Amino acid sequence: MTGAARIRSAEVLVASPSRNFVTLRITTEDGVVGLGDATLNGRELAVASYLRDHIAPLLAGLDAHRIEDTWQFLYRSAYWRRGPVTMSAIAAVDMALWDIKGRIAGLPVYQLLGGASREGALVYAHASGADLEDLGDSVRARLEEGYRAIRLQVAVPGMGAGYGISSGRASGGRYTYEPAKRAGLRVEEGWDTARYARHLPGVFEWARHEFGSEVMLLHDAHHRLTPTQAARLGRDLEPYDLFWLEDCTPVENPEVLRLVRQHTVTPIAIGEVLNSVWDFRTLISEQLIDYVRASVTHTGGITHLRRLLDFAAQYQIKSGSHGPTDISPVGMAAALHLDLAIHNFGIQEYMAHAPEVAEVFRTSYRYADGSMHPGDEPGLGVDYDDDAAARFAYSPAYLPAARLVDGTMHDW
Amino acid sequence: MTGAARIRSAEVLVASPSRNFVTLRITTEDGVVGLGDATLNGRELAVASYLRDHIAPLLAGLDAHRIEDTWQFLYRSAYWRRGPVTMSAIAAVDMALWDIKGRIAGLPVYQLLGGASREGALVYAHASGADLEDLGDSVRARLEEGYRAIRLQVAVPGMGAGYGISSGRASGGRYTYEPAKRAGLRVEEGWDTARYARHLPGVFEWARHEFGSEVMLLHDAHHRLTPTQAARLGRDLEPYDLFWLEDCTPVENPEVLRLVRQHTVTPIAIGEVLNSVWDFRTLISEQLIDYVRASVTHTGGITHLRRLLDFAAQYQIKSGSHGPTDISPVGMAAALHLDLAIHNFGIQEYMAHAPEVAEVFRTSYRYADGSMHPGDEPGLGVDYDDDAAARFAYSPAYLPAARLVDGTMHDW
Amino acid sequence: MTGAARIRSAEVLVASPSRNFVTLRITTEDGVVGLGDATLNGRELAVASYLRDHIAPLLAGLDAHRIEDTWQFLYRSAYWRRGPVTMSAIAAVDMALWDIKGRIAGLPVYQLLGGASREGALVYAHASGADLEDLGDSVRARLEEGYRAIRLQVAVPGMGAGYGISSGRASGGRYTYEPAKRAGLRVEEGWDTARYARHLPGVFEWARHEFGSEVMLLHDAHHRLTPTQAARLGRDLEPYDLFWLEDCTPVENPEVLRLVRQHTVTPIAIGEVLNSVWDFRTLISEQLIDYVRASVTHTGGITHLRRLLDFAAQYQIKSGSHGPTDISPVGMAAALHLDLAIHNFGIQEYMAHAPEVAEVFRTSYRYADGSMHPGDEPGLGVDYDDDAAARFAYSPAYLPAARLVDGTMHDW
Amino acid sequence: MTGAARIRSAEVLVASPSRNFVTLRITTEDGVVGLGDATLNGRELAVASYLRDHIAPLLAGLDAHRIEDTWQFLYRSAYWRRGPVTMSAIAAVDMALWDIKGRIAGLPVYQLLGGASREGALVYAHASGADLEDLGDSVRARLEEGYRAIRLQVAVPGMGAGYGISSGRASGGRYTYEPAKRAGLRVEEGWDTARYARHLPGVFEWARHEFGSEVMLLHDAHHRLTPTQAARLGRDLEPYDLFWLEDCTPVENPEVLRLVRQHTVTPIAIGEVLNSVWDFRTLISEQLIDYVRASVTHTGGITHLRRLLDFAAQYQIKSGSHGPTDISPVGMAAALHLDLAIHNFGIQEYMAHAPEVAEVFRTSYRYADGSMHPGDEPGLGVDYDDDAAARFAYSPAYLPAARLVDGTMHDW
Repeated sequence: MTGAARIRSAEVLVASPSRNFVTLRITTEDGVVGLGDATLNGRELAVASYLRDHIAPLLAGLDAHRIEDTWQFLYRSAYWRRGPVTMSAIAAVDMALWDIKGRIAGLPVYQLLGGASREGALVYAHASGADLEDLGDSVRARLEEGYRAIRLQVAVPGMGAGYGISSGRASGGRYTYEPAKRAGLRVEEGWDTARYARHLPGVFEWARHEFGSEVMLLHDAHHRLTPTQAARLGRDLEPYDLFWLEDCTPVENPEVLRLVRQHTVTPIAIGEVLNSVWDFRTLISEQLIDYVRASVTHTGGITHLRRLLDFAAQYQIKSGSHGPTDISPVGMAAALHLDLAIHNFGIQEYMAHAPEVAEVFRTSYRYADGSMHPGDEPGLGVDYDDDAAARFAYSPAYLPAARLVDGTMHDW
Repeated sequence: MTGAARIRSAEVLVASPSRNFVTLRITTEDGVVGLGDATLNGRELAVASYLRDHIAPLLAGLDAHRIEDTWQFLYRSAYWRRGPVTMSAIAAVDMALWDIKGRIAGLPVYQLLGGASREGALVYAHASGADLEDLGDSVRARLEEGYRAIRLQVAVPGMGAGYGISSGRASGGRYTYEPAKRAGLRVEEGWDTARYARHLPGVFEWARHEFGSEVMLLHDAHHRLTPTQAARLGRDLEPYDLFWLEDCTPVENPEVLRLVRQHTVTPIAIGEVLNSVWDFRTLISEQLIDYVRASVTHTGGITHLRRLLDFAAQYQIKSGSHGPTDISPVGMAAALHLDLAIHNFGIQEYMAHAPEVAEVFRTSYRYADGSMHPGDEPGLGVDYDDDAAARFAYSPAYLPAARLVDGTMHDW
Repeated sequence: MTGAARIRSAEVLVASPSRNFVTLRITTEDGVVGLGDATLNGRELAVASYLRDHIAPLLAGLDAHRIEDTWQFLYRSAYWRRGPVTMSAIAAVDMALWDIKGRIAGLPVYQLLGGASREGALVYAHASGADLEDLGDSVRARLEEGYRAIRLQVAVPGMGAGYGISSGRASGGRYTYEPAKRAGLRVEEGWDTARYARHLPGVFEWARHEFGSEVMLLHDAHHRLTPTQAARLGRDLEPYDLFWLEDCTPVENPEVLRLVRQHTVTPIAIGEVLNSVWDFRTLISEQLIDYVRASVTHTGGITHLRRLLDFAAQYQIKSGSHGPTDISPVGMAAALHLDLAIHNFGIQEYMAHAPEVAEVFRTSYRYADGSMHPGDEPGLGVDYDDDAAARFAYSPAYLPAARLVDGTMHDW
Repeated sequence: MTGAARIRSAEVLVASPSRNFVTLRITTEDGVVGLGDATLNGRELAVASYLRDHIAPLLAGLDAHRIEDTWQFLYRSAYWRRGPVTMSAIAAVDMALWDIKGRIAGLPVYQLLGGASREGALVYAHASGADLEDLGDSVRARLEEGYRAIRLQVAVPGMGAGYGISSGRASGGRYTYEPAKRAGLRVEEGWDTARYARHLPGVFEWARHEFGSEVMLLHDAHHRLTPTQAARLGRDLEPYDLFWLEDCTPVENPEVLRLVRQHTVTPIAIGEVLNSVWDFRTLISEQLIDYVRASVTHTGGITHLRRLLDFAAQYQIKSGSHGPTDISPVGMAAALHLDLAIHNFGIQEYMAHAPEVAEVFRTSYRYADGSMHPGDEPGLGVDYDDDAAARFAYSPAYLPAARLVDGTMHDW
């Protein structure tokens, strides 16, 4: 029988194995433990405060089984709703409650979501380079690891570090790009869109020549183009058959994407900075995107992201969840359970965490041959080691800003 | 000539004279001080953390004169932008920088914004009652205080406390509704929309009979109606000539307002839970509202709210800034400077703070005969008394939730 | 505290150092002086009359600090509002009042507008030629002066003088195109769109071959194409990566641009003949342009152009202010203050005035390495020398007209 | 045969018989004289300068027969086109050329426009009053004069003079409202929209009761309502079957009228402040109005207004030309010729000039039984008496401004 599973405590855990993570741990009176990821890269402590100071006291005594009701309670009684801090905090509670429900049921979360719709979730890896030779090494390393989908980022000659370029020669090692800097508060990177847009098509021409037509190639423009620039870049990239072009423009005003769609059939992926189904309404209902880049961690949890993806399915728009290392192993596990269960899964971003992360987070998900599986342990399949976590104290880190040549602040 | 005004420090001040306030104080190397309001009722400490842990370290060394650049820096380099926590934090910085610029220029902020467009800002006060007799007393008290615009909220028979009903008989005293409770974490109020919608028109019929046609009457439905219910309520209220009907529906999907507008010409005010011009785009560009209810404090500060209101002016939509006691005196001063300067000012909400607030915040704004003026001191005209603040320690307080008769979570 | 700064006088100054300029000088009772540019090339005296006969008498006694209120007063009480004469006259008052406010505050105007958003404003210069060799000389002269963005205009073989072609071989000297002729009332230039549209792509192919891919190249079609012609020309120019194609069609009916946008991603700049945010509504809200070509001088001043550009920013549309020599140094200074302050600055047109202009207008703005800065003097940073002005009497000058081969009047 | 009719001179005549008028007189080398009205109330001298300083020198030597070509020449070579000053100046030239062509042909202008489509043009007169009794007297005076269509304006109790209220008791005399004041530069009238909107429906209820259902009743809201206010007022007035409600909102953003049309079937007339077919595009193509209120004098002349009305006819929208005393007898004659000729004529505003106007302008148009006819003299049928004009020197006059109760500048 299912009686209530009263929540005894909700703890906010902040640790920094290689990078900062905020984790919510909910424990029921029966001692069942659920974990949720609340990491918002560069704004971690605001979410931690939101959870610790404003949400955790409200959770004690609630029935952990009432996931939907708790979601609505946290969303609606916050009053000042929406936005990344709020939606990441709610996401953490939601993930932890699904974890608990899975553990009580003795089932992995994907089973509660309707069961597996596929054998595994196709993932894409990152490759980058200071130049084409370096990028070639990086791509080859990924191919050797079995990836069939790879995001390419490359430095633009004469422009210094660009977005997504791993520091140091790749040499086939682990890709370790982490834009949030622990030292140096105001890291400002120079940016010149015209130079970038002129350079990029040649990179993909080279890549197709070098690696053939089968490998899925992706690229992230990281919000730096105007609609017209994006339209042109998308068109210029068409011969190289990208899997997607990501975040081509800032997305506050989604209508600007109309122009992009008018000019190019390069698939468009958008949304890692969006946080709810409402943020995606125009993008989806006007068929302005092909992939929803939202994450479980920043989009209100499994409950809400599932809804968003269900809506997207009406338009044959697929998932493509955000998943670099600023998504903790808890958030990655939640994403993989959802990836396995939904029908309109597209692809999952994956960037392996640094080895010390595994000391704090014990995970059951597994990678093989370019795809991943969440594992079959009850719940999300992640455990948190407090002793290990204690060895990695929080240390502030800041995302960079981008400035144009003339000093104008730009979208990073 | 104007050299830079380098920022020396940015301090986050949390104090609770009668209720919680978060204040940002920026000090330049020359000792010029600017204040910003960062109070987000019930989520105060998340904003305080956002500012203290993530923004304040970035501010030291910046030129306080570069308000626009700093706004763009904080918005764009946050990466995870938008939402109430982020936009309230940025608002606090923006207010403080305008305060500093005014003090350096020797001018009140409204002069920097283009000077006064009127003699004073019409304000509306709150009146409420447990029944019509009680409401009558409350309205009369407001009229005696000189208010010409009054928001009426009244308990619905058989439904317990509703939104906006001051506790205790009014007896002509200060209206002291504070929904955020210091004790009792999960205050849940019952709600029955049908009962409310049947009751309300009679209340306004009574009010017009009692107080005549000249007094401006407002009402706040506080997000609790469906579009169809709102359309009908708006039409049912038409004979009583409301100044506005506020927040008739939740606003995540602004398109639902189309139905409301199709059926009623009762003026619509929306937006205290929205945080940016982008949140208002559809509401404004489709002429779905008459008043923008955004506040300086929760909408990115003077810089951003001015932009939003300029956009609204293209559609003859006016301002109607949110201004209950959860806007601190700093936020209220900023609102009044903007109210005085913009052309499309409509009305300003005003609810006098408890007397002890004045011990912490010394203000230059003044009320007389139903309207307010920000005063003519340089900057915003507010000073903060640290010694007084020390006497009022932070104490958690929670906004209530609303549940329908069957226990369904509803919008509060 | 700030008392009123009453206006004592408003004088209209007409002088012609190398070309005609109309300047408004407002003086407060305290002797603070503000300047505004009211030059409308070829219709100067109508604006001078508008100011002298209809506006100046209204200004005496007003508070110079009330810029917004005065703007609204002049706009709304004109009754017959909008259009170039009205909006240029209002612009002159607005500039002069911002100049005064800056002088009273002891701050350059850009500081009142929110401070600098960049180090300097990228400007583009003009190059033209009777043929490619001549154009090459002109471009090289600009490059040697440090310009990184250059507008190319070239005569079309067999068509006589076209728009924007400097008379005489360039020989590396100052570019001195002035279409308004002092002698010859009805100068009519022949025009053949088909011939032009066939010729132009080859010019830009040559230019890219000659000057490489980095220099920003612009072109002004000067309203002479149909929508279909513009769509094709834009597409034919795509390989040469223009910074923008300007005024491709007449703009009375902005909807015609839809066709252009459907067919080309060449960036579109429009608007030097438009005068208000309302004139730009469709162009902006339908994402039909990339750059707003309005000027402070012809678009209601700093107050109104800032509003227009803020609106454009919602669509990632940038500024590209009109700035040939028919903008006086006062108007150029105002443009540069705005250019420095706004976030969505794109580029500024710049064409150096003849040397004798500097005898009348003493400016603080400076050019270096392809960009400009307004300087740091309080206000706009421009002074007017009455004695020098007296040496340059007004002399009528007329813009040409264009006729097609069969004698049909065309857009010049 | 028709050889060219070369223009010898174009003179700008400014005279003030009871009020200011600007008249353009074009004379051909053969001595044929044509007159055009260039009066722009309160901005007269700017148009006079535009004509005298910038247009007149261009006209000498042109063939007066080439009306279309001259229109295009003046419009396109002005470069800074559109707006009331420009379009009034062009209108004056256009009227004068049609006058000349009629005189050369020996035909009244309406015959050149396609001949009479009706016996006479229905006109509406003005009635106003300080209160209902006074208004009743005024209406009765109009009825006795034979008018079948009457515009009613009445003072709002407690609000001082409103728009369109004749000073002094009507007593059945000539209606002599002239808002432009010769003394007092900045006449500011107070305005309270809510008070007005509450009062007006009762006035029309009274009027229908008093004067029956047959008389056509009109009202001018003079741009003072928001879209929502206009929607409500239109609906509130429906029982009284207005002929039209004029200028209910400002019209810069015509899309705001959509809301008005959604809520009321009271016919809408708009446009005396608009100046071209482009200004009317959205109003007409979205069926937002029923009557085009443009005038020959302010809308580019007979040539352009005919085009605008032809476009309106596609939508069954009719003419309703602006015609108070600030349209000179020349402009009134031009309007009547057009009224007689076009198919989609609706109504013509008519307000008799003061007696001394007839000393300067000798007209052939006639009024009888509520309608007018332009007469059958060749051309427009108006002659100008220079000797009489010399007795009436120009004297500045200013339109008032309107301020709301709190001092906010409002649309007058």
